[in-house]
Order: sequence, then C-alpha cells, then structure tokens
Amino acid sequence: MMSEGPPVPETRVLAVASHVVSGYVGNKIAVFSMQTLGCDVAALNTVQFSNHTGYGQWTGNKVSAQEITDLYRGLKNSYLDDFDMMLSGYVPGAEALEAVGKIAEELKERAKKAPGSFFWVLDPVMGDNGNLYVAQDVVPVYRNLVSHADLILPNQFEAELLSEVKIEDMASLGHAIQVMHRRYGIPHIVITSVSLRHPDHPDASLSVVGSTMTSERRARAFKIVFPAIDCYFSGTGDMFAALTVVRMREAVWNTPGLATAESWRSDDSIDALDLPLAKAVEKVLASMHEVLTKTCEAMDIGLRRRLGETQVNGGVDDKKMRLLKSKAAELKLVRHVDSLRSPKVQFRAVKM
Amino acid sequence: MMSEGPPVPETRVLAVASHVVSGYVGNKIAVFSMQTLGCDVAALNTVQFSNHTGYGQWTGNKVSAQEITDLYRGLKNSYLDDFDMMLSGYVPGAEALEAVGKIAEELKERAKKAPGSFFWVLDPVMGDNGNLYVAQDVVPVYRNLVSHADLILPNQFEAELLSEVKIEDMASLGHAIQVMHRRYGIPHIVITSVSLRHPDHPDASLSVVGSTMTSERRARAFKIVFPAIDCYFSGTGDMFAALTVVRMREAVWNTPGLATAESWRSDDSIDALDLPLAKAVEKVLASMHEVLTKTCEAMDIGLRRRLGETQVNGGVDDKKMRLLKSKAAELKLVRHVDSLRSPKVQFRAVKM
Repeated sequence: MMSEGPPVPETRVLAVASHVVSGYVGNKIAVFSMQTLGCDVAALNTVQFSNHTGYGQWTGNKVSAQEITDLYRGLKNSYLDDFDMMLSGYVPGAEALEAVGKIAEELKERAKKAPGSFFWVLDPVMGDNGNLYVAQDVVPVYRNLVSHADLILPNQFEAELLSEVKIEDMASLGHAIQVMHRRYGIPHIVITSVSLRHPDHPDASLSVVGSTMTSERRARAFKIVFPAIDCYFSGTGDMFAALTVVRMREAVWNTPGLATAESWRSDDSIDALDLPLAKAVEKVLASMHEVLTKTCEAMDIGLRRRLGETQVNGGVDDKKMRLLKSKAAELKLVRHVDSLRSPKVQFRAVKM
Repeated sequence: MMSEGPPVPETRVLAVASHVVSGYVGNKIAVFSMQTLGCDVAALNTVQFSNHTGYGQWTGNKVSAQEITDLYRGLKNSYLDDFDMMLSGYVPGAEALEAVGKIAEELKERAKKAPGSFFWVLDPVMGDNGNLYVAQDVVPVYRNLVSHADLILPNQFEAELLSEVKIEDMASLGHAIQVMHRRYGIPHIVITSVSLRHPDHPDASLSVVGSTMTSERRARAFKIVFPAIDCYFSGTGDMFAALTVVRMREAVWNTPGLATAESWRSDDSIDALDLPLAKAVEKVLASMHEVLTKTCEAMDIGLRRRLGETQVNGGVDDKKMRLLKSKAAELKLVRHVDSLRSPKVQFRAVKM
C-alpha cells in the first residue's frame, strides 16, 4: 500500500544539535523526524555521546566551536549552504553556541533580499524545572541570539530566563510572552509543557502555549490543553522542535502569500486561532501524544523482558535498574512513523 | 492512509560508519534506510565530514580508535550493547578498523551460546575499479576480520583483494566466491555491481552475485541481472548494505527455524535460488533501482535550477560545475521512502 506523499515541498534544513549513538535525543531524533516527513536534512552534530546524559553516565566527546565553524565553511565551499530552514538545539558551551549563532546570522543576512526564504527555529536549551543545565555564561548568549531567530521553543523555565518574568499562572505566562515579543522582536513563540493550574484545565493536564506577534509586536496567544502521560521521557523537546519545523512550513505553504512574508508572520487581521502556528502545533502535539502513549505502553514490556533475562544472571541492583529504566523510556519512534506522518488531531487550540 | 507495518520484528542494529553533515553516504544513508524499515539503530560515527570525499574537498574530523572503543564501552556500561545485528562500513585507518573488529568479535563471542542471536554484516570498504582508497595496511586487517563476519558485501575489486583471484569473467568470479567461502568460512557473500560480459547479459547491464555456503563450505551462487543507470552516484554501496541488513533478517524470519541456525545458514538441501539471501537481494535491488532511477531523473532538474540561480551571479567555472554536479547526484531518498518500504521486485535471481 502506498503511503501519502511528504507534507512539505522540497525543504533543505540545517540541524545543529547533539548526537547519541544509542537512543533518541537531539539530532538523533530530530533528523529522523524531519527526514520521515520529507526534508533533506544536513545534520551538524555538536557532540557524539554513547547515550543521553539522563542515564547518569556516558562516554564520548564534544565538538569544539572551531570544528563547528569549519564544518559550516566546508558546506559553504561546496555550495551546500542553500538552506531553507535551520533548527538549532543543544550546543555545548557559550563559545560553540556563538559559533552556531554566527552561522544562523549569516544565513539570515543572505536571505534578507528574499523575505521568507530562510527561517530559523531556535530551541534555547538551558534547563528545566528551575534547574540550569548549561553554564551560566550561555544564558546571555541566548538572549543575544533570540532577536535573530524566527521561532523559539523555550520551556516554562527557559521562558522565565529569557523574559525575566516569574511565571506562576496563565496571566504571568501571557505577560512573559508579550515581553519576549517586545524585547527581542521574536515573531513566533511556543512554550512547551506548561503545567499551570487553570479553571479550564482538568487535573493531570499540560498545555502548550503559542503566539505569533503582530506588526506592532503584540502577542496573539493560543493554548492547547492535553492530558499528561505519567512517564518520564527524554528527547521530547527535540522531537517537538523538529516536528514544528516541518508542520510550520506545511501550514505556511497552505496559506497563500505567507511563504514570502518576512518571518512568515501572519497579517494583523488574522486571529490567534487561525494562525498557521496554531495549526502546526496542533499536528505536532497529535504526533507527540501518539508516540509518547506508545512509548509508555511499551516501557513496562521492555523492562520486564530485560529483567527476566538478567534474573538468570543474578538479579539487579539499584544502579542497573535505573539504567534499564532509562533505556526502556527511549522514545519508540521508528516503528510508529504513521504517528509522525498522519497524526490524528484530537486537541485543538483555544484562546488564552 | 496507513502504510504497512515494519518488515522485521524489533531489531537493534549497531551501525559503524562515516557521517556527513550534508548528503547521503555512510551512516547518513544507512541509518535512515534501516530506521525507515523499523530498526532501532545505534549509530557510531567514525568521522564527521561536511560532505563526502567525492566532492574533492571537505572539512571535518576523523574519530580515533580510542574514541570508538570508548563509545562502545559507554554502551556496555549502560546495558545498551544488546544488539541483534551489526553493520560496519567505512572506518578510517587500520587501528580504528581493528577497534571496530574487536567490538564485533566481542558481540559474536557473547552470542555463541544462542546461535543466530547476533549477525554481523561487514562491508569491506577498500576501493573500487582497481583503485585502493584506504591505506595499504587496512587490507590485511580486513582479511583477518572476514572470518568473524556473517555476511560480506565486497565490490568486484574488493572481492579480488580478499580472494586474491583476478576476476575477468563469470567463471573467475565464481571461483573467487568459492575461495572466500573456503578460506574465511564466511557464510554469506554478496558481490555488488559486477560488470562482466556474458551471453545472458544485454549491453549496459550489471549484476549482483550472491552465495550462501553449504556445511562443507561449497558455494551456492545466484546472480541478478539489472539495467545499468547512466549516472555516477555516491553512497550506493552503503545503502545496499543497510537494506541487506533488514531484508536478510526479514527473509530469515520468514523461514521457519532459520533464525536460530548458526549464521542463518540454510540447510544443505536448499537450492541457490531458494536461499533467503536471494530473496533479500531481490528486494534490495528493487529498492535501489527505484531510488537510483528517481535520483537520475531529478539530477538534471536540480542542476539546471542551481545553474539558473548562479547565471545571475556571474556564471560557473569548472570547479563549481563539478561541485554542483556532486550535489545534484546525492541520492534522493527521503522523498521516496515507499521505494524502501514497498519496492516492486522486477529483477529475479537466476543460477550462475
């Protein structure tokens, strides 16, 4: 049986993020997600680690700022820098992040004569749940870069770092979004996995909140509420960002005239719920929810099989148990590509 | 529309080969090919180059033997070395190749108590068309490793290096295969893109020749003749090897009892044309032929578009023309995943 064709026109993406040999975070999940949806992805890996750091132990090396710059120069020298989009994720250290920023700024600068011809999705990976997991000097570098990006995907904590607004409820979240639009002129913002209480939200629900600013940098915010899944995953932010790259391009291509507008920013007359960003995020969330549900279902089975095998070899201590759980929680993507290609949208954007 | 499910049961593959940021050779094409067919692939990259060396220029670095060993140790330490299969491709230098060989030998050794539980596909990347493109000291390392592998995929030149038989016609090719089975005890051999004249072969045809040895190391050879495509591609060997990993596992899983036989070697009563290897290679070739045909069709369009853009900027010299041609010849895989998943088999195995 033939599956349907790719959702986007030919799209060449530069993806800059970490690589893990085993498992699914960073470029390891982002590259496959975008390729499966038909993108020609250039994958510039900022580290090569055996596995993600959530295991608590790993081997491998980081790529230096100089190596990142050299790899990009190699692309340029061979006319391989004709990118339509760029996705940047985890970059180790301030110097390497500055090198990545220079690449993006150069591509943005060159595209100025053809509005909409290059779009930079920046995932400002700094931390989560109140904990910074990069060096302190990385934060100001991100604050500088955000004004050059077209779309950012901070989580709640990263949105606080960028806006310097304490987010405690939906009202302060809306304020943080407004501050980021105004301060950085960043056209599109998606805040992933917001866990704030609100009369509209049932218990154990999360939301994603997005906004595309108007010509006067006013927020047009929507939220999508969805049920939380009671499992701890790694790589969800990276998968979310990669799918957003593709679904944003798809939604913009389906909107006459928008692909040649600067930063794909919708006309001021467009309502929050009619934004291409809202359509895109609805599809991204649908894919995420399907993959996470399937991962969670498979986790127990995978873990029990491994435990069965190891019982024979003399039981399991706490450390081994933690490692086996990390492995069992790796996103189950490759056997569920239909969830990427044809997600069933259940959760719709509503006004903030 | 739902596409069909993966052709193989859950399969965890360790893929060791080169990584290029842009384009499709080595792990860049192998990993996506196997993931698209449902495999959980651990990708250990032996280099990170901006682009493949066929462009004549590139930037990036090789990974050292020590780093390869360390990455594997990282996997082992976290119980991530539970591989069903391994695919090894280009490895830079004798020392790094020895490090990869040690990984494979360790996995083979551990699997001895459960025959068929681990299968190593070794692509002995040494050269092509009479030219060695690795250092001379790599050749003896491959000669040592082949006796530990389950399936090798040399091209005609590499088969000469391993067998020390000059291949001039189908008879000497058959002899080279017999020598390799006998000398190395290598159970499965596939010789890719053989361009020998034979009364059966129309002009401008190529063949792939395969064999699974009997318990007495006798060859059971078949060939598949297919039309040559008049384009120069890179990465075809890597894509062929990756698809062989998946299609071999599929064919073996469809043969009762074979998955627990040592090296998935068919019973002596099985005829060459009924070998799972023959079924596997028929599907691999079908996918290859579809992707190469589509790549060739798209080449001229891609090249003309780029030339049109550059005319405006002042024309094209010879070097630029060569670089643009290399880019236009990159395999067009991501937008043709149906050719991987559901190839239409046109070319069938026949007796040698």
